[in-house]
Amino acid sequence: MATPHIPKTQKGVIFYENNGPLQYKDIDVPTPKSTELLINIKYSGVCHTDLHAWKGDWPLGVKLPLVGGHEGAGVVVAMGENVKGWKVGDLAGVKWLNGSCMSCESCELGNESNCPEADLSGYTHDGTFQQYCTADAVQAAKIPAGTDLAEVAPVLCAGITVYKALKSAHLEAGQWVAISGACGGLGSLCIQYAKAMGFRVVGIDGGEGKEELFRQLGGETFIDFRTSKDVVADVIKATNGGAHGVINVSVSEAAIESSTNYVRSNGTVVLVGLPGGAKCKSDVFNQVVKSISIVGSYVGNRADTREALDFFARGMVKSPIKVVGLSTLPEVFEKMEKGQIVGRYVVDTAK
Amino acid sequence: MATPHIPKTQKGVIFYENNGPLQYKDIDVPTPKSTELLINIKYSGVCHTDLHAWKGDWPLGVKLPLVGGHEGAGVVVAMGENVKGWKVGDLAGVKWLNGSCMSCESCELGNESNCPEADLSGYTHDGTFQQYCTADAVQAAKIPAGTDLAEVAPVLCAGITVYKALKSAHLEAGQWVAISGACGGLGSLCIQYAKAMGFRVVGIDGGEGKEELFRQLGGETFIDFRTSKDVVADVIKATNGGAHGVINVSVSEAAIESSTNYVRSNGTVVLVGLPGGAKCKSDVFNQVVKSISIVGSYVGNRADTREALDFFARGMVKSPIKVVGLSTLPEVFEKMEKGQIVGRYVVDTAK
Amino acid sequence: MATPHIPKTQKGVIFYENNGPLQYKDIDVPTPKSTELLINIKYSGVCHTDLHAWKGDWPLGVKLPLVGGHEGAGVVVAMGENVKGWKVGDLAGVKWLNGSCMSCESCELGNESNCPEADLSGYTHDGTFQQYCTADAVQAAKIPAGTDLAEVAPVLCAGITVYKALKSAHLEAGQWVAISGACGGLGSLCIQYAKAMGFRVVGIDGGEGKEELFRQLGGETFIDFRTSKDVVADVIKATNGGAHGVINVSVSEAAIESSTNYVRSNGTVVLVGLPGGAKCKSDVFNQVVKSISIVGSYVGNRADTREALDFFARGMVKSPIKVVGLSTLPEVFEKMEKGQIVGRYVVDTAK
Amino acid sequence: MATPHIPKTQKGVIFYENNGPLQYKDIDVPTPKSTELLINIKYSGVCHTDLHAWKGDWPLGVKLPLVGGHEGAGVVVAMGENVKGWKVGDLAGVKWLNGSCMSCESCELGNESNCPEADLSGYTHDGTFQQYCTADAVQAAKIPAGTDLAEVAPVLCAGITVYKALKSAHLEAGQWVAISGACGGLGSLCIQYAKAMGFRVVGIDGGEGKEELFRQLGGETFIDFRTSKDVVADVIKATNGGAHGVINVSVSEAAIESSTNYVRSNGTVVLVGLPGGAKCKSDVFNQVVKSISIVGSYVGNRADTREALDFFARGMVKSPIKVVGLSTLPEVFEKMEKGQIVGRYVVDTAK
Repeated sequence: MATPHIPKTQKGVIFYENNGPLQYKDIDVPTPKSTELLINIKYSGVCHTDLHAWKGDWPLGVKLPLVGGHEGAGVVVAMGENVKGWKVGDLAGVKWLNGSCMSCESCELGNESNCPEADLSGYTHDGTFQQYCTADAVQAAKIPAGTDLAEVAPVLCAGITVYKALKSAHLEAGQWVAISGACGGLGSLCIQYAKAMGFRVVGIDGGEGKEELFRQLGGETFIDFRTSKDVVADVIKATNGGAHGVINVSVSEAAIESSTNYVRSNGTVVLVGLPGGAKCKSDVFNQVVKSISIVGSYVGNRADTREALDFFARGMVKSPIKVVGLSTLPEVFEKMEKGQIVGRYVVDTAK
Repeated sequence: MATPHIPKTQKGVIFYENNGPLQYKDIDVPTPKSTELLINIKYSGVCHTDLHAWKGDWPLGVKLPLVGGHEGAGVVVAMGENVKGWKVGDLAGVKWLNGSCMSCESCELGNESNCPEADLSGYTHDGTFQQYCTADAVQAAKIPAGTDLAEVAPVLCAGITVYKALKSAHLEAGQWVAISGACGGLGSLCIQYAKAMGFRVVGIDGGEGKEELFRQLGGETFIDFRTSKDVVADVIKATNGGAHGVINVSVSEAAIESSTNYVRSNGTVVLVGLPGGAKCKSDVFNQVVKSISIVGSYVGNRADTREALDFFARGMVKSPIKVVGLSTLPEVFEKMEKGQIVGRYVVDTAK
Repeated sequence: MATPHIPKTQKGVIFYENNGPLQYKDIDVPTPKSTELLINIKYSGVCHTDLHAWKGDWPLGVKLPLVGGHEGAGVVVAMGENVKGWKVGDLAGVKWLNGSCMSCESCELGNESNCPEADLSGYTHDGTFQQYCTADAVQAAKIPAGTDLAEVAPVLCAGITVYKALKSAHLEAGQWVAISGACGGLGSLCIQYAKAMGFRVVGIDGGEGKEELFRQLGGETFIDFRTSKDVVADVIKATNGGAHGVINVSVSEAAIESSTNYVRSNGTVVLVGLPGGAKCKSDVFNQVVKSISIVGSYVGNRADTREALDFFARGMVKSPIKVVGLSTLPEVFEKMEKGQIVGRYVVDTAK
Repeated sequence: MATPHIPKTQKGVIFYENNGPLQYKDIDVPTPKSTELLINIKYSGVCHTDLHAWKGDWPLGVKLPLVGGHEGAGVVVAMGENVKGWKVGDLAGVKWLNGSCMSCESCELGNESNCPEADLSGYTHDGTFQQYCTADAVQAAKIPAGTDLAEVAPVLCAGITVYKALKSAHLEAGQWVAISGACGGLGSLCIQYAKAMGFRVVGIDGGEGKEELFRQLGGETFIDFRTSKDVVADVIKATNGGAHGVINVSVSEAAIESSTNYVRSNGTVVLVGLPGGAKCKSDVFNQVVKSISIVGSYVGNRADTREALDFFARGMVKSPIKVVGLSTLPEVFEKMEKGQIVGRYVVDTAK
């Protein structure tokens, strides 16, 4: 492949202080370190975390100034001299974990997202709301040739996260998984991954058209919390004794506590969302006598990433998106704050 | 072995209604079913659960009238015609789980204590506060020949329970386990099992002579919650990053919540006591970002029982006891209610 | 349900010495022990093992006289007084493992087929080539109401066996499993279970119409060993590095050795057939450097049985059979000896 | 810490062609890449693999000219600009796996030694028979401060290898492990690690003083293959049913085959040595009916390394060595070829 032309400057959205103006403007193209890729980002998903990074309302401080974004898909255009396993022209994804030390106990065990030196895209490392972004070659995601780069963008965060959560439930094919909040952005992907993994899905959600969507995506039994008289009893009945695993995509405290009651003996409740200040409350007597596990699941590691992308590339998971120009990111943030976003927005860095 | 003489009646402690008089008197010797052993109980431990059974203050109702007790050690004197793998003269232990259906999903998977038809010694099945007790041959514990029957009695409940809790933490040899409430009855056994399994033990407790006891039993680092300025920080420092596993023998809500903060990323917090009405409260953000598991551990299964008894038989675990006559059980219950019991009481059914 | 009428005698096929005449005649209806079911067998599969039992050419001796058969499906008509979890009228399956002690180390761990006191249907316990058969209630298979009893018969042995083999490969959804001998009786079921578990299937076999059958059952890549120039290279190429797991349904020594070369690093080769005298030969250097496992998988346990039947009941696995009368069993054996059997024969005990 | 002085040249042992002269002479000090450490090697173990590298008699070709050695312990004196988690003055170990790509499927899963781009110390990368050696910072071993650098050297290969083999047997504390070849260099370390992990050790070996050594190191039951009439029967008797795991440190084909017969049902046979051309032959019938696993175990990964070093640093494993000058390496090789080496030789790079 011919060496791509790499410009000196590019378009990106940058902010200089938390809550400060989101400026769409010309910025420098970064230079990759010896261990990094330079990726020409074509599309980037927009996630609630990006809003938190801009507002600075999480306990962990962000880099400033900052280019946000952590769900980027593009093409490798350059790389440092110590990079192994990549070549210019490969499709690559940038995800929340941009890089880690690879030599601490967490990294050794494949838990790189728990590395104390974790470098986070769009948070401590300039992210994917720009045309050219650097990414650690070890953590960057290999995207199979031929993949639609716009559709794959949200898979790089939302898809991997729900896939990892499903793995954290330690289920076997044929077992029941309950998804609390089944029909939102994460839940919709979760249903599809669960099906691809051979699980039977009971979904809990409420609202117009939710059950229909649930069934289209492959769900088996739907429980509408608005009309159910007893969600716990209904899940236990539908699953003939309780769900073997529960994925709490919903971050409602009451829904989480409820899930500890409809999970089966020796089953697993997975926490995956990040509600600020919320507690998971579990009755100790119930948890001991039923021998249930409550497990926190964060973002996926390199293997989870490869596997989640593989299910997508094989067509087993669809990701409905709405594409807009990168220059309109401030409006997307505004809608997100107002709760007006339905589905996943993806920005096209060329516009 | 000559067929033992089995009397028609025996001494036992029975009550006819919850909180009613505990009568030490002559009662009928029970007849084993075709699948049961008749065991001549020599010694039985006395456990808080026995108090709950008598008072009837747990959600699950007891059989009435009832002979309590579920930590009994003795000798097989007879058996039903379908019993396999036992012979008259074998040493046998009676434990909390007297029998189960063996054919439900829980039983199939070795989680017999979660069987909906679980039959509980001293609760739904007459227990070990009598000289002759029946026990399901499949669940009865095989006690190695030569074992001290008085000392082994508490191992049949307390020992197995902490051993199971340690297994539920999924640790590897060389890793750190924190024991919250390290120097009480359960904790003392837990320290010894942890050592025998190759773990490094940090103990949390407070009071006169606790640290000395802790070290005698093989503990490595002791943290006195009365003098520590920051228990969480102290555990994290002692373990170079947090304990890989935590066994919450203490049932204090605050201590349990604290354990979710000093456990290491990807580590496991085990709940093992049964405090009525207590909640385990875990900060969702912390649990997700650190990817920690909180696991309820109930009583052990047949394999856990065999293994826990084997460590005891090999002398790796000592069980300090105080032996009194069965006829004094009412006084033991009284002391227990008043919190005057130190260590484990064992009743001699011959006195 | 009304108590069913149980006759004193019944039709069955019995032999009095190995290789002696297979007599279809009136024999006594057996009486269940206190822990057993009496099952009115409607259909029974015929398996190669039945031929071995009759000939007596395995190292383990058979009961004599013997009623063979170990893949029987029927209806519970009576039970002993200590049976739990069953009622008259339930559908029940009789499988190879009729009963075990349930209290040895193997039984405790769910490895009941490895119990030294294992009681084997149609081998050490009169089997399913009769109208009424006894079966230990703990080991008997619960067949969901509404299941076709003829079609389910072979699932009780062949289906469970391949399902167990797949579980023994410790694969994750999305990984590649190679099936060596993919299109025979066991292989055909194996492809379907693998698909239901989310695996990708590469099949190795040879002959007319094999590839077509393979694809109908859900296989992804077929390698014809008659036309392939290098099976090892072809499997590695098809799976992008080697199969994560291999199920050796074929018992050819050369095919087994070959599988140690096309399995991926850290992958698992499963042995499942029982060729008399055959060796699995693995190059030590290759096995160490690639860190591969070679695992023997025998028949499934109670949980495997329930799960395998559940996939069948949900329609995810089809079992093509040919039904003939029980009275024709001698002819079926003759065909089997001559290698003239294609697919699975099932005998109808009413004929 | 003051920046250490790094010379331009150093002493090392180098050879220019396989079987060519081993020259002890002045060679250039290498320059670390941006991701590498430069380590001042103080001591290096000498291993049979070093002999193979020099002779070039393994299927995989070596770099030429080559400085051999892959068990080196020293001090970090410099590092590339992208190294994380290290500082000058840290103690560091160089092991067989010098570096890997960290982004292939094997690396992602912690199986870095199976990486197709694995870079091997003293084989494809100049090794530890010199005073200054480069090592990938991710793979280099962190040696705790205060560790004896001469004694730890052999732990970096032999110790990690046997520790990994023990982990590959998937044993629980209290279970039996058999070590075939218990009293050689690898076996001696294996006994000690097994004890530290809570296993019970039965050792198989033969010769003067072997049993005594075995007991000193913590072994429980010794079987002398020279005097035993039936090793298989003796191991089964000693372990009450067969060893739960077997570590084949001996590379005798007959001993390996024998181990498949004394391993317990559902147990694991581990292959760890690398005998050229040897086969592991396992009877398929036996392996299936007993459901045993035969597992190849190669060198440890980063986590195995840290754990194995931690047991050593805590004094639970002793490594008996003989220290000689690096300049005498040719004589050590000569002795090794003649089979005159007892115990582990370590070279001091300063002499």
